[in-house]
Amino acid sequence: MNELEKNIVKWQSRASKRREDGVFIVEGTRMFTEVPAARLQTIVVSEDLFMRYPEMEEEVRRKREASHAGLRTVKPDVFRKLSDTQTPQGILAVVRITERTPEEVLSDGTGLYVILENLQDPGNLGTILRSCEAAGASGVIMNTGCADIWNPKVVRATMGAIFRVPFTIVPDLRDTVRMIHERGGECHAAHLRGAVPYDVPDYRGMSAFMIGNEGEGLTPELTALADRRIIIPMKGAVESLNAAMAATILLFEAARQRQ
Amino acid sequence: MNELEKNIVKWQSRASKRREDGVFIVEGTRMFTEVPAARLQTIVVSEDLFMRYPEMEEEVRRKREASHAGLRTVKPDVFRKLSDTQTPQGILAVVRITERTPEEVLSDGTGLYVILENLQDPGNLGTILRSCEAAGASGVIMNTGCADIWNPKVVRATMGAIFRVPFTIVPDLRDTVRMIHERGGECHAAHLRGAVPYDVPDYRGMSAFMIGNEGEGLTPELTALADRRIIIPMKGAVESLNAAMAATILLFEAARQRQ
Repeated sequence: MNELEKNIVKWQSRASKRREDGVFIVEGTRMFTEVPAARLQTIVVSEDLFMRYPEMEEEVRRKREASHAGLRTVKPDVFRKLSDTQTPQGILAVVRITERTPEEVLSDGTGLYVILENLQDPGNLGTILRSCEAAGASGVIMNTGCADIWNPKVVRATMGAIFRVPFTIVPDLRDTVRMIHERGGECHAAHLRGAVPYDVPDYRGMSAFMIGNEGEGLTPELTALADRRIIIPMKGAVESLNAAMAATILLFEAARQRQ
Repeated sequence: MNELEKNIVKWQSRASKRREDGVFIVEGTRMFTEVPAARLQTIVVSEDLFMRYPEMEEEVRRKREASHAGLRTVKPDVFRKLSDTQTPQGILAVVRITERTPEEVLSDGTGLYVILENLQDPGNLGTILRSCEAAGASGVIMNTGCADIWNPKVVRATMGAIFRVPFTIVPDLRDTVRMIHERGGECHAAHLRGAVPYDVPDYRGMSAFMIGNEGEGLTPELTALADRRIIIPMKGAVESLNAAMAATILLFEAARQRQ
């Protein structure tokens, strides 16, 4: 393996290496088309890509013209070693990480937001970003205890929303709640011992849903700062919905009210 | 491997073998506690189970008394070969398959139902069963083109709902729609070219949501039989929500109306 290939393997697997170098990996034909050209650094394709996906030839050409990104072609067996997926499609890109400040993310005074505390599952995190986009949310604020958003599993699960939904990562979400309150917004803690059914509050003003860790829920410290604890009423023996399901139900209730 | 162990490997991986023998595999401490004792056939534990999960000793004893299920103890390296998971907890059970008839599933004249056509992803199918239970749905009707419900990935994703939500598998869903109409119910097709926003119809009477394949959606043949096409309005560049997300949003809107 050459230097670039060794780095790609590390960027696929190590959050600290991604942070250090300020890049992450985007993989697959569909996700490749979603990458903003300005953030493309290097494109890596398998020798058999254009035979298997002829339409990608034009797409790669267009993206390169708009970005001046480098292009490397590797043998299929090398590509398999670089890939994070079981059945690689034969295209990946090295993409520059960009981050917003909490002020930028919270700039919409009537926006709909999601606050994530220690969310651990990459699939849940990715799905929540996708639901945020679909529901028209203005952004996501997560703490450093969450799964790494540039993890390839997260990136894949976002289906491209990672490039479109503003987000920021903060050390202490209590500051985030204070910022929302200063802007006249309300924070609603999704909680198994919620005091109010989720469809009762008015979410038409600036609103944030607080979602906690899959096993533990929100910490008492953060819950204490919420304007209210809301609950999604559940039947049967189900103890709790998966975090992504709960976030989706809340986001679409807010979207419904805002229509 | 002895005969039982060889069979367990086949039951984990092959839908046809599960069908043929009328059993499926349930794995893990949490899912084991969810199995109705009457359906337990054999319990297989790893030698180190009770050391790692002392509380399971009582649970296994109780389940065996209620079921007279056989108990086999195997070495940890053998258990790893029988397991469908990366990090096995050390307990699995051979459980009898039970199926209901469409008439049994559709027996609730004011029930809330989900009709699944060619749904392919095991995680989606399992999550939909879990959401059905949480939203208080009366049952699921799926066609033979769906992922196998006794696939270990589906079973795991249901978190036990597979034992509690009534379901049936039918060759032709057009018959299901006719049965619902005969009972005075309505069928709502979740459709990207829906005519009605999903929160407009009244779901308080007998209602079924029709959900199609992840890539293709519902077939035109089945869509044509629906009372209406409903749509979940979406923002951004999101083309469609994942099938499990869409089903969850619809089920909880119905649950909200029914409260």
